[in-house]
Amino acid sequence: VNDITFDWSLECPACGATASAEGLPTVCPSGHPWLVRYADRGLTLTDRADIRRGQGMWRFRRWLPLLAGEEPVTLGEGDTPLLPAARAGAELGLHDLWIKDESVNPTGSFKSRGLSAAITRARRGGARGFVLPTAGNAGVAASAYGARAGLPVRVYAPRSTPPRLLEQVRRFGGDLELVDGHIGDCGREARKFAAEHGWFDLSTLREPYRIEGKKTLGLELAMQSGWRLPDVIVYPTGGGTGLIGMWKAFAELRTAGWVTDPMPRLVSVQSTGCAPIVRAFNEGADQAEPWSNPETIASGLRVPAALGDRLILRALRESSGHAVAVDDAALASAAETVSRLEGLDISPEGGAALAAATELVRSGTVHREARIVVFNTGAGWLYQRG
Amino acid sequence: VNDITFDWSLECPACGATASAEGLPTVCPSGHPWLVRYADRGLTLTDRADIRRGQGMWRFRRWLPLLAGEEPVTLGEGDTPLLPAARAGAELGLHDLWIKDESVNPTGSFKSRGLSAAITRARRGGARGFVLPTAGNAGVAASAYGARAGLPVRVYAPRSTPPRLLEQVRRFGGDLELVDGHIGDCGREARKFAAEHGWFDLSTLREPYRIEGKKTLGLELAMQSGWRLPDVIVYPTGGGTGLIGMWKAFAELRTAGWVTDPMPRLVSVQSTGCAPIVRAFNEGADQAEPWSNPETIASGLRVPAALGDRLILRALRESSGHAVAVDDAALASAAETVSRLEGLDISPEGGAALAAATELVRSGTVHREARIVVFNTGAGWLYQRG
Repeated sequence: VNDITFDWSLECPACGATASAEGLPTVCPSGHPWLVRYADRGLTLTDRADIRRGQGMWRFRRWLPLLAGEEPVTLGEGDTPLLPAARAGAELGLHDLWIKDESVNPTGSFKSRGLSAAITRARRGGARGFVLPTAGNAGVAASAYGARAGLPVRVYAPRSTPPRLLEQVRRFGGDLELVDGHIGDCGREARKFAAEHGWFDLSTLREPYRIEGKKTLGLELAMQSGWRLPDVIVYPTGGGTGLIGMWKAFAELRTAGWVTDPMPRLVSVQSTGCAPIVRAFNEGADQAEPWSNPETIASGLRVPAALGDRLILRALRESSGHAVAVDDAALASAAETVSRLEGLDISPEGGAALAAATELVRSGTVHREARIVVFNTGAGWLYQRG
Repeated sequence: VNDITFDWSLECPACGATASAEGLPTVCPSGHPWLVRYADRGLTLTDRADIRRGQGMWRFRRWLPLLAGEEPVTLGEGDTPLLPAARAGAELGLHDLWIKDESVNPTGSFKSRGLSAAITRARRGGARGFVLPTAGNAGVAASAYGARAGLPVRVYAPRSTPPRLLEQVRRFGGDLELVDGHIGDCGREARKFAAEHGWFDLSTLREPYRIEGKKTLGLELAMQSGWRLPDVIVYPTGGGTGLIGMWKAFAELRTAGWVTDPMPRLVSVQSTGCAPIVRAFNEGADQAEPWSNPETIASGLRVPAALGDRLILRALRESSGHAVAVDDAALASAAETVSRLEGLDISPEGGAALAAATELVRSGTVHREARIVVFNTGAGWLYQRG
């Protein structure tokens, strides 16, 4: 693989270091995540029309870390619906509510996007197997995309993970290890295994490409809106790559002139039982302290410390955004209400975002006429018990 | 609604009768299903490019029963991946295997397509509520699209239906009634309820529009293949609207000149525990006798009598197709193998189609180099127990 010429490189947003994309990049020596910076790919405004003729998230291949002629590891992820939700909006007091429904991705969540990109690159970089910690959905996606790539996957998940998420890991052939603790404890086990066996660690932001896959959340949203952007984006935040990815997407689209609307206000939503980003945002801090004893039924939000905390907080502040915590009763109620009113399979994390949007309007932080896009990051059925 | 001018009408393929599309059409007075016949919509070859820029199954609105300017009842159904499956193909002995993965539709199955179309039209026609019998997935879809339309849905399902399918009916607000028996028994209950309460009966082929929604399976497959058609399509067949819908789609595409390839060989797959179409096909009959004591774990194939039996058999014969029955062990094994090898969530019905494709090649009925598209009609998770 040494003769490949990459037309992108890696840059550390914390210390400014740069590096080549060769081999299997992880994080900057400073310990901070790499971000991908592309050389000029000659994209022009007329290329917008071509992109509309593509399929799935790889229609955006010229915005993504893919070499000329290279085929990605794909299950057809992306192309998820952006739906007006008037009935739910009326119930929740939101006059222009839209739901981006990530539950219809191949593995039932937005995690498909990041793992399609990361596994595409790591397979090409020579990875022999993959390991990752998960709150659930990332483990399902890693198992599926690992299978699709023909490479083994080892998954470390909290014993408290909803059983159907664990079941899907196994159905896609993932080698599942249960851990007493939270995703941070799983991360330590995953890194130990990776070091001992030479398998590649796919942990959030410990490699540079999951975020590039997540970037397609923003690219797709812009395309589906006729290259316009909404006023507010409300996003459930665990590790935060979706939020960082969209922030990067909108910045790149604006730089390219494909979008001229201002950056939407980005809102991070967490659970009152695990809200490190919300606490840091409210305290005006530029990084987040780990949350003690994280607890919530929204397992994807049970992330006590995010490696991307600085980037998340920066994205919220630079976009005049916000951070909101909601409790488990509120998120469960919102998920149930909107599933029943709209026929959508809302996850607890999606419910958290809907409850937060309601609260933002009720408190006057966001005007009720604002165009609000709420992300339903995954399918609710994966969290049902019994 | 009397001032609407429809640019389509209804035609009975059995007796040749025709009727207007006004009101809430059901079946021909002869008892046979109506098929929709469109007036000339002025489609030209250059419209193919426009269609590629659309989203979801309603990108084909000019091929569908939608009035000018009308908005469908949609959850973003369609745009499902058509994936090469080399690893599964190698395991099964198929050299050019593709899987059309309908599991990523909004309600987890291909049923989304038909019910989006049927509920769009029936709401406009004045329906106050919906009722239908189901083997599972149609009930989930009807509940979700009914919710989306703001109208109540009553679902009759066999008590033996996999519990997660029943759970999803309830989550989307469907009013669920369990019946001791099979889908035919449920159909009688549904018709009785419809007659007593004036709600609209959405049973397979008892109204003309579910099949139009299913037609998009074929339209989409053609578009995704660059307006080419595969050699063979292997399709699990319960009520058979998917197969009839594709047959109608390919015929319409060929008439319009959008596709010049010959009609693919259409293969119906059923379970050895309920194979009325296979039996009729093998006997050379032009209609199918009801199957006694239908039993299979593939609940979507537990359909002892299909109202569209004549149309199914005609489509199989006119396309030089075939009909194959596989047993529960074979279909479960194929579903498990391909889920693990490809990272796809294969349903029992999808497993049946994969097992049948293997058998067709092994027996020499289909050449192993043939391009075969197998439909995974729904998500496997909906059938898991516990």
